[in-house]
Amino acid sequence: MVQPLRLGLAGLGTVGIGVVKIVQRHADLMTMRTGRPVVITAVSARSKGKDRGVDLSAYAWEDDPVALARRDDIDVFVEVMGGHDGAAKDATEAAIAAGKDVVTANKALLAHHGQALAEAAEAAGRVIRFEAAVAGGIPVIKSLTEGLAGNQIKRVMGVMNGTCNYILTRMQNAGLPYETVFEEARQLGYLEADPNLDVGGIDAGHKLSLLASIAFGTKVAFDHVELEGIGNVSIEDIHLADEMGYHIKLLGVAQMSGRGLEQRMTPCLVPADSPFGQLQGGTNMVMLEGDSVGQIVLRGPGAGEGPTASAVMSDVIDIARGLRLPTFGCPATQLADVCPAKSATPAPYYMRATLLDKPGALAKIATCLGDAGISIDQMRQINQQDEQDDKALVLIVTHKAAPADVAHAMSQFAATGVLVGAPVAIRIEEI
Amino acid sequence: MVQPLRLGLAGLGTVGIGVVKIVQRHADLMTMRTGRPVVITAVSARSKGKDRGVDLSAYAWEDDPVALARRDDIDVFVEVMGGHDGAAKDATEAAIAAGKDVVTANKALLAHHGQALAEAAEAAGRVIRFEAAVAGGIPVIKSLTEGLAGNQIKRVMGVMNGTCNYILTRMQNAGLPYETVFEEARQLGYLEADPNLDVGGIDAGHKLSLLASIAFGTKVAFDHVELEGIGNVSIEDIHLADEMGYHIKLLGVAQMSGRGLEQRMTPCLVPADSPFGQLQGGTNMVMLEGDSVGQIVLRGPGAGEGPTASAVMSDVIDIARGLRLPTFGCPATQLADVCPAKSATPAPYYMRATLLDKPGALAKIATCLGDAGISIDQMRQINQQDEQDDKALVLIVTHKAAPADVAHAMSQFAATGVLVGAPVAIRIEEI
Repeated sequence: MVQPLRLGLAGLGTVGIGVVKIVQRHADLMTMRTGRPVVITAVSARSKGKDRGVDLSAYAWEDDPVALARRDDIDVFVEVMGGHDGAAKDATEAAIAAGKDVVTANKALLAHHGQALAEAAEAAGRVIRFEAAVAGGIPVIKSLTEGLAGNQIKRVMGVMNGTCNYILTRMQNAGLPYETVFEEARQLGYLEADPNLDVGGIDAGHKLSLLASIAFGTKVAFDHVELEGIGNVSIEDIHLADEMGYHIKLLGVAQMSGRGLEQRMTPCLVPADSPFGQLQGGTNMVMLEGDSVGQIVLRGPGAGEGPTASAVMSDVIDIARGLRLPTFGCPATQLADVCPAKSATPAPYYMRATLLDKPGALAKIATCLGDAGISIDQMRQINQQDEQDDKALVLIVTHKAAPADVAHAMSQFAATGVLVGAPVAIRIEEI
Repeated sequence: MVQPLRLGLAGLGTVGIGVVKIVQRHADLMTMRTGRPVVITAVSARSKGKDRGVDLSAYAWEDDPVALARRDDIDVFVEVMGGHDGAAKDATEAAIAAGKDVVTANKALLAHHGQALAEAAEAAGRVIRFEAAVAGGIPVIKSLTEGLAGNQIKRVMGVMNGTCNYILTRMQNAGLPYETVFEEARQLGYLEADPNLDVGGIDAGHKLSLLASIAFGTKVAFDHVELEGIGNVSIEDIHLADEMGYHIKLLGVAQMSGRGLEQRMTPCLVPADSPFGQLQGGTNMVMLEGDSVGQIVLRGPGAGEGPTASAVMSDVIDIARGLRLPTFGCPATQLADVCPAKSATPAPYYMRATLLDKPGALAKIATCLGDAGISIDQMRQINQQDEQDDKALVLIVTHKAAPADVAHAMSQFAATGVLVGAPVAIRIEEI
């Protein structure tokens, strides 16, 4: 008789309940696919009494996830509690110390402590799997770690926070300002308790840092991700970009060059008719670029009970099948230290500035660009009138420019004395 | 000292040379990722003397792939020769009998002999891997077998023959008839020696039958794939479909219902703005639909040296890492016999017919549809004049109709005596 694989499930929120449902619904399917039963032995959550709409009576209960992690009757500790410190970290460490494999959906935990946890797990001969931590139901960790393992990875790009993409597409489609759509998203329950995790790009940045580690064989370096959220994306820029054939996305890019590892999670313009440009609502998309395979694009639901639980269960099933790999695809002790390259790669930029409509104003702006070594691809001036002043809206698309040069030019704009309000520069990402 | 994984490579065409290049270029990368060196020990091809642009001097040569498969100094037999009988089959059987694992890019071999080969391999404790056989560089076999293993699969769809998609998109974009573009494709070297493998839908049908086996836990049943190639797709239908917001694709669909397993590889109309509708040129796309995860869409290069070799090497690396699974995801002896359901699922249909412009002609066509139980969603008549006759082009989009009812109605059209030429009916696939 084969031994069942016994899960200890920490966290009974949306994802945890999704896991329970799959284990209960597909027992036979999983036995056929893995050759052994997959069962839940014990669970843990904050509130024991709460009705969660599933029958948990067959499972032992632990109030303390650390106690759950140490139980003799579990083989795999499934951590779907969330949070990068405190209970999730303590329990994951306890599970590894107790000789358990770990499956987690916790991107924050791994972005902050992935290296230490991976080293501990590998020293103990245990695995940590985290398919559910990145891009929900899309099997992107597996595709990158295994499916593209014969490639030197050139670049990874992704729209990996469904809430941000919902907000940006809703702004565009309904013509509503950020604040209004942000409030809608809050009322729909789309936002984390700390909304800055979503709209500040932090959650998506966590995910990018995990992909970068696998892609480039480097230690997770979330602290070196250049982060900019969507809070400053204006409906005006969304409309103007659209008129020029671009959509604005919170896009993550990780790439390795001679200057080091570049990791950015920032609003970007992407061609409206590109796969990223067409991505609507909460859907996620990741592009993996390898030296042999070229570009692979993966698209699917980035969150929710079913998709996230599907990803958790794919990790559980891998373990049941005996598929075991180092956390980040090669031994944690061999991962290289990151040499960060801050936005080294040049790109075209979209710029918007409002000028006092005075002779020579536009020339001053153009001079700033020229002095910074930035050449102009397109420039358009739209005169505007209001009660106080005549103003001119200037739109510029540059040729490829280094991010540092763009930052320098933007800082010089202020010194011209012809600006009304703050100018905007948004990178145009080529795909 | 860890033992290297030793490959015997049968076939030195485009894909084989791609494999050699990756093994030579990325030796260190693969050692880091797998913990052991991956080396080629011996190779086999038709012509030893041919200059293939890579250095093969370090590898033993075998004229006979069967002899290669049996060599004591190989662990994995890599079959990239092609052909569903003869040498490829003999050598693969010999490899399994000699205790080797097998990595193959050969969809025809597995579509015809997959069940027997899988049973033999599993009885011998060996694996057969075939990521490169379906959708080129896209890790679709891995995504389906492992990434979505926690799901009951509802449906698999795919555009999986790049040559057909090239022809159809080129017809549409350039407004050229099938015959012209077919000839272009031939001259560009896009077509198999037997072009019917491509344009007849056979190659894509092979791939669909392999995906269906994994998805539904059934024996490979290529004989039950409903096959229709693109040879009858007219430029007229492409234009008319486009005007209604659809593109025509050679689309594979496999789905399981209470009536059995449905497998179709046929030209279909898909919404122009859907992921499938937007797919241009030789790119492949597969949609996997699971009960928990929803729809995952994978997109990438479906052929070519780099992408196909990338897929071959992902299988090799899995073996080097010790990841071992049954060929079709669960033991071959447990795969169910297929109960085929021929096009059971109703769908809307696009219909085109040319009628003699006589009173009552349109009514006769409408009556045929009504008698077959098919209701009309849209109908449009375009009168045409030529030297001989007045004719009327009639376009119909039906509500959902059973394929058998559509076939019946089409056969009844002929009996009306009002048709000029043959009528056309093309399924509209909902995604």
